[in-house]
Amino acid sequence: MPHATTPAAPADATVDLAALQALLTDRVAPWVTALNLRVLEARPGEVVLALPVAPHHVHGGGVLCGQSIMAAADTAMVLAISSQLGGFKPMTTVQLQTSFLRPIPGSTTGDSGEARVVARVLRLGKSLAFGEIEVLDAAGRLAAHATTTYALL
Amino acid sequence: MPHATTPAAPADATVDLAALQALLTDRVAPWVTALNLRVLEARPGEVVLALPVAPHHVHGGGVLCGQSIMAAADTAMVLAISSQLGGFKPMTTVQLQTSFLRPIPGSTTGDSGEARVVARVLRLGKSLAFGEIEVLDAAGRLAAHATTTYALL
Amino acid sequence: MPHATTPAAPADATVDLAALQALLTDRVAPWVTALNLRVLEARPGEVVLALPVAPHHVHGGGVLCGQSIMAAADTAMVLAISSQLGGFKPMTTVQLQTSFLRPIPGSTTGDSGEARVVARVLRLGKSLAFGEIEVLDAAGRLAAHATTTYALL
Amino acid sequence: MPHATTPAAPADATVDLAALQALLTDRVAPWVTALNLRVLEARPGEVVLALPVAPHHVHGGGVLCGQSIMAAADTAMVLAISSQLGGFKPMTTVQLQTSFLRPIPGSTTGDSGEARVVARVLRLGKSLAFGEIEVLDAAGRLAAHATTTYALL
Repeated sequence: MPHATTPAAPADATVDLAALQALLTDRVAPWVTALNLRVLEARPGEVVLALPVAPHHVHGGGVLCGQSIMAAADTAMVLAISSQLGGFKPMTTVQLQTSFLRPIPGSTTGDSGEARVVARVLRLGKSLAFGEIEVLDAAGRLAAHATTTYALL
Repeated sequence: MPHATTPAAPADATVDLAALQALLTDRVAPWVTALNLRVLEARPGEVVLALPVAPHHVHGGGVLCGQSIMAAADTAMVLAISSQLGGFKPMTTVQLQTSFLRPIPGSTTGDSGEARVVARVLRLGKSLAFGEIEVLDAAGRLAAHATTTYALL
Repeated sequence: MPHATTPAAPADATVDLAALQALLTDRVAPWVTALNLRVLEARPGEVVLALPVAPHHVHGGGVLCGQSIMAAADTAMVLAISSQLGGFKPMTTVQLQTSFLRPIPGSTTGDSGEARVVARVLRLGKSLAFGEIEVLDAAGRLAAHATTTYALL
Repeated sequence: MPHATTPAAPADATVDLAALQALLTDRVAPWVTALNLRVLEARPGEVVLALPVAPHHVHGGGVLCGQSIMAAADTAMVLAISSQLGGFKPMTTVQLQTSFLRPIPGSTTGDSGEARVVARVLRLGKSLAFGEIEVLDAAGRLAAHATTTYALL
């Protein structure tokens, strides 16, 4: 029954940013921890992360690689759902669709600032959660947009 | 005009596996090179890669993380398109949609075999290419399925 | 070159609602015209349409069928892009991904009010346009969410 | 638990084509019945349907409209899942992503042959089903490709 409702934190609850940040080392694979995502803001059902445009995420064409963008989007949604649930619970990505609207320039030899990742829960059902993620370049322009479905286990 | 046709290698052309393998270090970001993808087979428009289920790609739940699967899928399609074009040409991912059907178990402390990534060009137009990617677990069962659109630059 | 820019109407331009409404009979297939979509509002790059929850769009489970929702979403985006281009130009859907978050109840014997379809251009490039569509139930809750890529011909 | 298994018909079971055909009038909305889909073949987990390229599904550009293609894809998957379950059970589309690879030409004044819709269940879990759909033009070329997730209710 995807349309029943899971108990969730009230919309004005305070979210523990340090606890969310800890998920990025405790719950994700080390290869994903290496994205060095940083929690900037969170409220129940929405998180904002910084994604450093570091040289090892930039490909020969001089742009932040799409693989890093998708990985950041997926990871951000885990945090957004956790923030709405009032803490991490086991979940699994059912599907994730990403559109790439605009390249994020980067250097292969030095840091190039940060992109911003905004993940938002669109609906938290009993067994499924739906969300969308925006990835913004340093100028705040939409660079990538993703939508996703998670299964709550 | 997405429906015009790009000159492509004949379907029975021989594909240079070493040249495809070299793309995985020369053309992708170092973070993606770290997936250690290995080209197993290729023909024009189709490649088969091995994706090692290495500890740093496994998350706390004991499965290969979805981020690695999406990254491998995207990367494999670059090789599949290159194999059909007769060599690498600049391209960019327009969108990639991945569905996760079945977890691929892994260990956080030691290697856990390999998944297989099969990428296939469904249509190579003049400016757009369409493809699908299957990720198979060690037993050959479908674990993830992706579809994607690329823009040829 | 998906990242170049197409000449577009200024953001504060007035959009001719009657001209947009006329597209719904002149440019779409008769089967789609039968959705009876009605243009409520438009500004460059964004349109709001009413989608009647009519009996012949309701299936045996008593909800507005997903097929009608997808058709409305796709059609609304044609209007949103046209509103930004300053008029209709030939285009074709490259891909459309729809997530269904919440059923919209309906009757198979009588009218059941209207859903609302909000289509927004996220990026209008030279050859590709990206957009998102929200379908809201009568209470204003998000019932479906779609993202799409169009090729401008 | 999306990865458990739903009891399903054996792979070599005979599927009742007339029962599947009846779903196209009994279970779908009248607007969808008007697609006039015809069941050509079925085995557990896979169906092949004919989609007439009728004038009222053809838009001003002289091609079968994408809305009809998406509607046919979604509908075909309901039949494919039902064929694997050994009969219809309530289900709902969670998401459907369609890519349009090649236009299917049609006339606005007379019939233009038939497209073929092949729907295949990729995985039937306990609560979720995954599938893919191919839409082929009269020459058997891939015109559209969709992937989808259903929730079993």
